[in-house]
Amino acid sequence: MADRLLCETDMAFQLFDWLNVESRLSDSEFDGETARAYFDLSQKLAADHFLPHYKTSDMHEPRLENGQVHVLPEIGTALAEFRDLGLFGASFPENLGGMGLPYLLSSASYAWFAAANCSSIGYTMLTGANARLLAAFGNKVQIDTFARPQIEGRWFGTMCLSEPQAGSGLADVRTRAVADGADAHGPRYRLTGNKMWISGGDQDISENIVHLVLAKVPNDAGDLPDGTEGISLFIVPKVLPDGTLNDIAVAGLNHKMGNRGTSNCLLNFGEGDGAVGWMVGEPGQGLRQMFMMMNEARIAVGFGAAALACRGYLLAVDYARERLQGRAIGQREGAPVAIIEHTDVRRMLLAIRAYSEGAMGLCLYCAALVDRPDDAEDAALLELLTPVAKTFPSEYGPKANDLAIQIHGGYGYTRDFDVEQLYRDNRLNPIHEGTTGIQALDLLGRKILREGSGLKVLERRIDDTCARAEAFPELSGNAAALRVALSQVFSTVDAVRTHPKDRQMDNAAPFQTAFCLVVVAWIWLDQAVAAHSLEQGLPQNDRLREGKTTTCRYFFTLELPMAAPLLAQVASGCDVTRTADPALF
Amino acid sequence: MADRLLCETDMAFQLFDWLNVESRLSDSEFDGETARAYFDLSQKLAADHFLPHYKTSDMHEPRLENGQVHVLPEIGTALAEFRDLGLFGASFPENLGGMGLPYLLSSASYAWFAAANCSSIGYTMLTGANARLLAAFGNKVQIDTFARPQIEGRWFGTMCLSEPQAGSGLADVRTRAVADGADAHGPRYRLTGNKMWISGGDQDISENIVHLVLAKVPNDAGDLPDGTEGISLFIVPKVLPDGTLNDIAVAGLNHKMGNRGTSNCLLNFGEGDGAVGWMVGEPGQGLRQMFMMMNEARIAVGFGAAALACRGYLLAVDYARERLQGRAIGQREGAPVAIIEHTDVRRMLLAIRAYSEGAMGLCLYCAALVDRPDDAEDAALLELLTPVAKTFPSEYGPKANDLAIQIHGGYGYTRDFDVEQLYRDNRLNPIHEGTTGIQALDLLGRKILREGSGLKVLERRIDDTCARAEAFPELSGNAAALRVALSQVFSTVDAVRTHPKDRQMDNAAPFQTAFCLVVVAWIWLDQAVAAHSLEQGLPQNDRLREGKTTTCRYFFTLELPMAAPLLAQVASGCDVTRTADPALF
Repeated sequence: MADRLLCETDMAFQLFDWLNVESRLSDSEFDGETARAYFDLSQKLAADHFLPHYKTSDMHEPRLENGQVHVLPEIGTALAEFRDLGLFGASFPENLGGMGLPYLLSSASYAWFAAANCSSIGYTMLTGANARLLAAFGNKVQIDTFARPQIEGRWFGTMCLSEPQAGSGLADVRTRAVADGADAHGPRYRLTGNKMWISGGDQDISENIVHLVLAKVPNDAGDLPDGTEGISLFIVPKVLPDGTLNDIAVAGLNHKMGNRGTSNCLLNFGEGDGAVGWMVGEPGQGLRQMFMMMNEARIAVGFGAAALACRGYLLAVDYARERLQGRAIGQREGAPVAIIEHTDVRRMLLAIRAYSEGAMGLCLYCAALVDRPDDAEDAALLELLTPVAKTFPSEYGPKANDLAIQIHGGYGYTRDFDVEQLYRDNRLNPIHEGTTGIQALDLLGRKILREGSGLKVLERRIDDTCARAEAFPELSGNAAALRVALSQVFSTVDAVRTHPKDRQMDNAAPFQTAFCLVVVAWIWLDQAVAAHSLEQGLPQNDRLREGKTTTCRYFFTLELPMAAPLLAQVASGCDVTRTADPALF
Repeated sequence: MADRLLCETDMAFQLFDWLNVESRLSDSEFDGETARAYFDLSQKLAADHFLPHYKTSDMHEPRLENGQVHVLPEIGTALAEFRDLGLFGASFPENLGGMGLPYLLSSASYAWFAAANCSSIGYTMLTGANARLLAAFGNKVQIDTFARPQIEGRWFGTMCLSEPQAGSGLADVRTRAVADGADAHGPRYRLTGNKMWISGGDQDISENIVHLVLAKVPNDAGDLPDGTEGISLFIVPKVLPDGTLNDIAVAGLNHKMGNRGTSNCLLNFGEGDGAVGWMVGEPGQGLRQMFMMMNEARIAVGFGAAALACRGYLLAVDYARERLQGRAIGQREGAPVAIIEHTDVRRMLLAIRAYSEGAMGLCLYCAALVDRPDDAEDAALLELLTPVAKTFPSEYGPKANDLAIQIHGGYGYTRDFDVEQLYRDNRLNPIHEGTTGIQALDLLGRKILREGSGLKVLERRIDDTCARAEAFPELSGNAAALRVALSQVFSTVDAVRTHPKDRQMDNAAPFQTAFCLVVVAWIWLDQAVAAHSLEQGLPQNDRLREGKTTTCRYFFTLELPMAAPLLAQVASGCDVTRTADPALF
């Protein structure tokens, strides 16, 4: 069962052979053997407790009764197992009650669970992000009171950013926090406002829920400050420390296409006297604090999307091996063959593998960067690659799941087969934690045109990969193609710099599409090189090397070439979208 | 309400200005005015009776109780209205009780209904195809007994091709038809076998159901003939002419991702003494008969996919005009703007429009070809374009719906907004009536390498369009690009002819992707030319001309350029998928 979640061989290759995770563990108490045991445990727990209710949690959505959200009990049971093994605290330091695991290891573990049941494990991701924010910016009492129970997995957490009238536009947040003295937990406020799209916003499977809420403190005239500068961050628990319920009402549940096990709520804060909340850190720092965590949150979305794509790949491979239909072209005699014998089915499998393993590799690479914040090169590269790690898996993961359905034919369109649900579940990922369009602005505007240092690091790493690839005849052509593509990225960026300032973002989206292709081509080539360095003559290594090389070649042949025409349009300053009059539509 | 189904202005432009439908009506009793009245009626009926239960029929799937399938009663009510207006017979000749409408008109009407509720109108499409097959190949008694009640809309029809073990592989059909004498309806047989994926396979909203079943007649030793040559076609009604129930059991209902209003059944024929059926035409002609209808069935799938995409476009445009969020780049003051002001939202709207209107144009063009079977050029072009009319809308329609969700942000991911359902409904289309991969084999293998005359016709038509486009400065660049792309198609085909026979289909899928882009680029350019020929100075004409020109330019800028790198790989005989060892996956 477990090997149907993610490809164990590939995950081991990526972590131990490609990213050489054991060398990174040298200064932690973890060693390679413990890491492997941790993965085994994750796989087993995911397969035994998360996968079995994957379909059930899709069929039985959270429901709202008398103001309380009820979720499928199996979700609570699975998360209790997760908690009892201490996994909520996996990546937290030991002095906070955690295990002190590197982010790379804890996020690889997360991928197993996301492959098994993305909406159940979603609660732990939100809880971890919440506790990490508190650990970074809260005072000691706040950490002890609100972070530690989350690290223990007894309380769960949420992030309350969006409002019904302001989704991605946080400058327009209207939730109001009025000063109400102070106590041991810090400066106290009363909050009033509506928060939309709150994942885990209410449920009945944790003892308490810690909401981290973005809100604005009115000035003396009672007006809220303009822009994002006036946004502060508040801790607003469902149950107050004195055991009474806070002034928070569940105004509604969103009924989603997929990802249904994670409740998603409209919360009304302060329908009565105002919800009690405590400010985290200094006033006006809310967005900055939230964005300190954003890289990890965005990479986590990438991991989730990649995991769903990888599971779909395994399901498609199994189906293609088992399903007998048709004969080779020109053959009319004999028994039907397994559909994996048909060239076009293999083309789809190669595409799915290229997207899913490439996405997973990209996310693992970025997770390794997260673990080295003090390395200036790694930090710069992480900034550059974060929108890519969010976007490529989110956009190509659903494409991979789409092809997995196609391989299943009519069966894939029915709810009896998990590929159908994977496709719906994965559709969320291009939307949350910053849409694909917002990532494109971040990538081209902030990370490349404004900062720029990450691109130079990427250039050096790609150059290094290509140099190593050139030693292998079957990879040297790919290396040459990658060098050409990278130079086109640079010339495109140079061209965009010459465009008028107010037009430089006109083609951020096609630029990002092309940039993603170049980055993932590099990930594939780098993995193919690493696969060539495995010990020769062992059947499992030979198979892995041939699989990586073939998929790499597929990506360079039928995917990377799409970058050039897009970059050419970006460089030329194509104005078709900017000049399109809104009245024409 | 009605104008939210399809863009009325654009449909009128495509039919009356671009395809000049009035000139085609000259030898029918229909004139332009009657055609417009027919469209108004279709729109109104679709909006009043089909749209209102779009969401309801998704939420309340057909259910099986005591061997009988029950569908949402609103579906029956809507189809009764459709029947009472005589619309089941719209495209049938008057001597069969129909209205004698050209296929172009009846299929444009179908598009309105498909936009409103694809799964409810699906029953009429199946019924029409069934009756048309009977009218073409049945004897007089069969036509009177089984076709006429369908043309009247009292009985519904199905097509029973697939079996659980043989989806697209019809050579492996195992349903057995044993001779059982003859009667007024023709040679009688007893059928035994299982048929899978039968849309409308059972329901409780028509008086009877006429199944057209592909089956094989065993030889004297009791063995079924190999291959597709032994397949015959049988009429197997749910209720026999004597009023008794035939030996057909509903073995199960498929629970689909979307398109839920259309019941989809596994039918067991002959659990008892064998289901009674009558052969249509000669033995061994079943597949040939079925494929005589296949062009229309495939174009109808294209229409459905295009209609869902077009409706999503209108919903996305409305949302983008109404939703206020964010400010222009660099602006921090003032109120939030409508998101249509953001360049990237307009990019998505242009993409949706390019896909959806392009798909609709392609289908309408093909429908016009269906109406001229005696014109050798048109007939050859229809053969060539049928897989394109099936594939482009099926593949790009879901992409359009995907972008419509993206424009809606989180709201688009909820079941409160129809874009969510459109996306699920449209996912069926790349699968049924021949998957995208099967269309690619048909396009490159049969229609181009084996037949080839359609490609020459296409070349002349594209040449004609380009010549007319060159008269308009803002279109001449597109004409030049299209000529280059077409010449690359020809050189690619020439290259493929030089490849070894058993390798010529290796890259049929990327060839088809590129070919679709070239064909749809031509459709866009041809429409842009037609829009330039509209009377100048009328605001509605100016707006239409500018909209067509801008969308055409978008397609040539950011979509058509993807064709060249794909064609280059096809021409080079790229062997990455053929040589990929199944054991590697």
